[in-house]
Amino acid sequence: MRTQTHVEDPALEQLYGDFAAEHLNPLWTQLGDLMPMVPTPKAVPFVWKWSTLYPLAQRAGDLVPVGRGGERRAIALANPGLGGLPYATPTLWAAIQYLGPKETAPEHRHSQNAFRFVVEGDGVWTVVNGDPVAMRRGDLLLTPGWAFHGHHNETDHPMAWIDGLDIPFVNYTDTGFFEFGSDGVTDESTPDVSRAERLWSHPGLRPLVGLGRRTTTPITAYRWQHTDAALHEQLALEDEGYAATTEPGHAAVRFTNPTTGGDIMATIRAEFHRLRGGTHTRARRDVGSTVYQVFDGTGRFHLGDDTTEVGTGDLVVVPSWTEWSIEAETDFDVFAFSDAPIVERLHMDRSHVTEGA
Amino acid sequence: MRTQTHVEDPALEQLYGDFAAEHLNPLWTQLGDLMPMVPTPKAVPFVWKWSTLYPLAQRAGDLVPVGRGGERRAIALANPGLGGLPYATPTLWAAIQYLGPKETAPEHRHSQNAFRFVVEGDGVWTVVNGDPVAMRRGDLLLTPGWAFHGHHNETDHPMAWIDGLDIPFVNYTDTGFFEFGSDGVTDESTPDVSRAERLWSHPGLRPLVGLGRRTTTPITAYRWQHTDAALHEQLALEDEGYAATTEPGHAAVRFTNPTTGGDIMATIRAEFHRLRGGTHTRARRDVGSTVYQVFDGTGRFHLGDDTTEVGTGDLVVVPSWTEWSIEAETDFDVFAFSDAPIVERLHMDRSHVTEGA
Amino acid sequence: MRTQTHVEDPALEQLYGDFAAEHLNPLWTQLGDLMPMVPTPKAVPFVWKWSTLYPLAQRAGDLVPVGRGGERRAIALANPGLGGLPYATPTLWAAIQYLGPKETAPEHRHSQNAFRFVVEGDGVWTVVNGDPVAMRRGDLLLTPGWAFHGHHNETDHPMAWIDGLDIPFVNYTDTGFFEFGSDGVTDESTPDVSRAERLWSHPGLRPLVGLGRRTTTPITAYRWQHTDAALHEQLALEDEGYAATTEPGHAAVRFTNPTTGGDIMATIRAEFHRLRGGTHTRARRDVGSTVYQVFDGTGRFHLGDDTTEVGTGDLVVVPSWTEWSIEAETDFDVFAFSDAPIVERLHMDRSHVTEGA
Amino acid sequence: MRTQTHVEDPALEQLYGDFAAEHLNPLWTQLGDLMPMVPTPKAVPFVWKWSTLYPLAQRAGDLVPVGRGGERRAIALANPGLGGLPYATPTLWAAIQYLGPKETAPEHRHSQNAFRFVVEGDGVWTVVNGDPVAMRRGDLLLTPGWAFHGHHNETDHPMAWIDGLDIPFVNYTDTGFFEFGSDGVTDESTPDVSRAERLWSHPGLRPLVGLGRRTTTPITAYRWQHTDAALHEQLALEDEGYAATTEPGHAAVRFTNPTTGGDIMATIRAEFHRLRGGTHTRARRDVGSTVYQVFDGTGRFHLGDDTTEVGTGDLVVVPSWTEWSIEAETDFDVFAFSDAPIVERLHMDRSHVTEGA
Repeated sequence: MRTQTHVEDPALEQLYGDFAAEHLNPLWTQLGDLMPMVPTPKAVPFVWKWSTLYPLAQRAGDLVPVGRGGERRAIALANPGLGGLPYATPTLWAAIQYLGPKETAPEHRHSQNAFRFVVEGDGVWTVVNGDPVAMRRGDLLLTPGWAFHGHHNETDHPMAWIDGLDIPFVNYTDTGFFEFGSDGVTDESTPDVSRAERLWSHPGLRPLVGLGRRTTTPITAYRWQHTDAALHEQLALEDEGYAATTEPGHAAVRFTNPTTGGDIMATIRAEFHRLRGGTHTRARRDVGSTVYQVFDGTGRFHLGDDTTEVGTGDLVVVPSWTEWSIEAETDFDVFAFSDAPIVERLHMDRSHVTEGA
Repeated sequence: MRTQTHVEDPALEQLYGDFAAEHLNPLWTQLGDLMPMVPTPKAVPFVWKWSTLYPLAQRAGDLVPVGRGGERRAIALANPGLGGLPYATPTLWAAIQYLGPKETAPEHRHSQNAFRFVVEGDGVWTVVNGDPVAMRRGDLLLTPGWAFHGHHNETDHPMAWIDGLDIPFVNYTDTGFFEFGSDGVTDESTPDVSRAERLWSHPGLRPLVGLGRRTTTPITAYRWQHTDAALHEQLALEDEGYAATTEPGHAAVRFTNPTTGGDIMATIRAEFHRLRGGTHTRARRDVGSTVYQVFDGTGRFHLGDDTTEVGTGDLVVVPSWTEWSIEAETDFDVFAFSDAPIVERLHMDRSHVTEGA
Repeated sequence: MRTQTHVEDPALEQLYGDFAAEHLNPLWTQLGDLMPMVPTPKAVPFVWKWSTLYPLAQRAGDLVPVGRGGERRAIALANPGLGGLPYATPTLWAAIQYLGPKETAPEHRHSQNAFRFVVEGDGVWTVVNGDPVAMRRGDLLLTPGWAFHGHHNETDHPMAWIDGLDIPFVNYTDTGFFEFGSDGVTDESTPDVSRAERLWSHPGLRPLVGLGRRTTTPITAYRWQHTDAALHEQLALEDEGYAATTEPGHAAVRFTNPTTGGDIMATIRAEFHRLRGGTHTRARRDVGSTVYQVFDGTGRFHLGDDTTEVGTGDLVVVPSWTEWSIEAETDFDVFAFSDAPIVERLHMDRSHVTEGA
Repeated sequence: MRTQTHVEDPALEQLYGDFAAEHLNPLWTQLGDLMPMVPTPKAVPFVWKWSTLYPLAQRAGDLVPVGRGGERRAIALANPGLGGLPYATPTLWAAIQYLGPKETAPEHRHSQNAFRFVVEGDGVWTVVNGDPVAMRRGDLLLTPGWAFHGHHNETDHPMAWIDGLDIPFVNYTDTGFFEFGSDGVTDESTPDVSRAERLWSHPGLRPLVGLGRRTTTPITAYRWQHTDAALHEQLALEDEGYAATTEPGHAAVRFTNPTTGGDIMATIRAEFHRLRGGTHTRARRDVGSTVYQVFDGTGRFHLGDDTTEVGTGDLVVVPSWTEWSIEAETDFDVFAFSDAPIVERLHMDRSHVTEGA
């Protein structure tokens, strides 16, 4: 968009100077930056390799203690477009967190909504409001805003996973609160299944205690066995000739709050996608930003004009309105989280499918 | 409530006659009946014994064919207070339906919302919009309003179950439509699990096809294994010292629409209750009517001043504002359905707990 | 629909006898009545003339005192199809209420939702939860469920108006409660405007006290000046070439709850329609029942195959799924109320436009 | 919050270097900044004087043409804490816009939600989707996201007003689209009242065309006469002894979407407050940021530890969680807009009343 150019006029120069002195700023000299024709994110599409991340996390495990003050041994993806800030996108935080044998990350709580997703390993329990939640490969574990939580590793081997939060968004909008909790975890037991799951993870059923709609999902752990089964069935139904997949060869589920049918948390959407080997999703653009982590298999992300090969554990950031598609080389499982609930609740959502594979 | 009495006044007599001639009706002579201090249902608390129902259904199986026209071999509970109408309560229909070996009940659809609950037997598939749904003990099977459905028995033994519908309510409000479908069922296959379940019955997950809120649940079958597990866990959590049950010794789940977290259908609520042997629920009154079917065990329903012994398969009707409580002799499993969604959506709900056991 | 006919079979006769003895009732002998192809209301389309109603109300005013016990001098429309019950339709009560000079109808409250609409006269205040609400020609006055209310006539002339309530529905569903209040009205002042209006009747504005969604509208009086202006503007906009009317020559407004944008009460919809002389609305059928009162002008209601001439004050009942249209002879103002919120909240709504005028 | 300090360890230094090289960023060195105990906005409380703003806008009127490209002669408040960006708060844009005699600002549309509020003057029409909307003192005029709009001054005198938008939020979240429209306005007529008002600005009424819930209010102009009357009545009711004001001496209304009862737009709340002279509001903190403009009278804003005298036209910014109160010297009218809908829809809302005046 063209904008008014500065004439070499002393009166105008004086006016602009007076604006600045009075903490004022004219629209007409910068309209194109403030209100572009389409979203022009500073964040860039980017890929972090698991083969790079994990060894760095290991080294941090050797050198940096975990404990009160620093709170977590988490290493955040810093989008190269965002000036060194530890933000994957303007709204989303994504980090690898690493906990050594027998280590404990102390309890705290914060307004920021958080989840963990496990691409490999096990042996850590995250304790959410006193309820120990086992972490295992493929599981999505939730610590919604203002829930106390700590983690402890009961084994002799380290474990790493990714954390997803809305830290950048909460920071930008000045909406966050934080509170320290217990230095250890408040329940050291190590059950296979959390109490919240025992109460809430039954399909289509809810307990009569705790009726009503809830802001965040009461389910603390979405287990791999269920995710895998749901994706498997979609592809099987497709094979049998029934509409079940998102597009041919592309199964997908959204993690939901069973008290509303909507997203798991007010600011973060989480989904799991499974592509048959050879599938190429339709290219599209969406308002809002997404972070993907490859869970299994190999494939390619097409992001704008670039293409990147990715495999298990690799993390991919897709900023707002970036054209993207995924091409599966092998059968390909991908976890995704995004700020779509923010975009949709504020009625800013738009998508554009830019033609087939 | 006292009302104005008729004076022996010829002018007044003439006035009342003129009212009648003009299809008018004064309020003041009948206020107490029209607007009582508390609900005064015509329907009465009543119990039907399975040991009576089942043999009668069998005799109907021998004598009455099932087919187009009569549509279903269903025998409805006719509340003694409702003048012979085939209504369990003013809003709810409850019937035993019986299908002989190799019989088929033809397809049709109607505005009325319907479900089936199986207290014993198996071998019938209900085909809902072309999707065959196996019926087995403990399962809750749905055919929401305007879904085509038929039933066929694939075995050499008969099967009976209960049907629950909102026929009385729909009839009273003049809101029902009906349409005949295929004379046979449109899919004769007999899978263990329906396609709708394969797509939707994964805890906390939904497919990306079919997003948004739906008027009725997309789950066609709520399986006994899940209901049983959910109830079992509530009592186990209670044993471990955690809040999970509705009241001590009383576990309960509500069947829900996973796209909203609310009731399965717009007019009917369904729940399952499990009492430990010896538990006596708190006596209470609720606005709206409920039908219970004992699924397992023996116990007593206290209904107003009466008490009735009940066992597996027995059906109990509790009209609006009737004081009720349940006392479990053995471990006691009870299925329940009610018109609570009508009452709550129209903001007529009230409850009153009338002291402990 | 054909149903199974009774064969002259002693075993079958015995079976039916045993059904009756056990309070059971087979579906197959009565399916067509229970579940007709389209709604087949017992209520019939009917018209009551104001010129008949008003004199009868006057005679009641001379002969029947108003006071505690009978509570109100209200004379209800008794639909000829409903067996003498004082019901305009299965769900709706409509009555003319008459209050003589200086008379008071004592305070009470009930679950039933109520409104008054004034087709002529003034001088009565209805006191709603202690807030006096003046009643004048064209006004819609509300007394939502469980609000205390009484009426008092401060003038030397009588006044009559119509009451609309959900008494039949509440009675049928056994959901009603009733409580007596003060024998006189709790505030005898006679302001032009109620306090609720002063707080709430400003377009697009709400007070910061009382935020949140409310079950029923906080506005106690919808004044004629606003209704008239809104209808006038729609026709003026139509004249200027803009889309504003419901159909050509037909302006219409719905009375709404400003805290939700939805209907004024959970069970009753109220609307006002204005037709230019000569306009004939498109014939249509709707699920649910409606009562119309002509406010001004002369015209014709086409109801099924019948046509009736109507004028100011005449009341017309349109049962569910009855084909109806309105033909305006002069400019024609009509008030309408219906059970549409019940039908819509329970997802039973359907309409069918059966071709143009 | 204390954070882990960097030890002088070469291995650690190397690790941090490797993090940076891989676009990674550890949490533990910066936790306190990322997740403070309470919101710590960069934006500061600040006041802009109308007596400064208006003359600068006039000078811009003399020196800078308005037209396609720059689009608007709008001069934005640039919060001193936000590094020179033209943002009043992280989420809100506030600007003075100035249009000289006979000038036209061309039509365009954008995802950003916008309103205008007029503290003095008249003579401009803003044309919203082809509907001319007169702008007069005290009026709130809306141009919701994606509505075409232009402004034209039909008089011989200039006019200035304030614009409020969600530009910073939309920019940060990369959710904005922009499109040019007509170079002139598409309807040059100058009616007193817009067509949208004629259709929608009737208290408690809505047209039957355009039913359903809408994302943004259909009312284009909230007129001063209604706002003034609503505030006047609240104080009058308080004088008469009834609960109507927000706190003693403090009347307040919220501008709402009549189709929902909620906020006028998805991202911006607007309210009007009236204080009696001498009233001091309770001090409080709220999550989210607000911009106030004094409409009439003189008073003081207490912001954290500072106090500022303000009068007609002055603009005050209150960042998130800043303690604030208002003290009225004279009768005092204040317009306010905030990002509260963002905060509330994402369930980040918190408030803390920090004791009385």
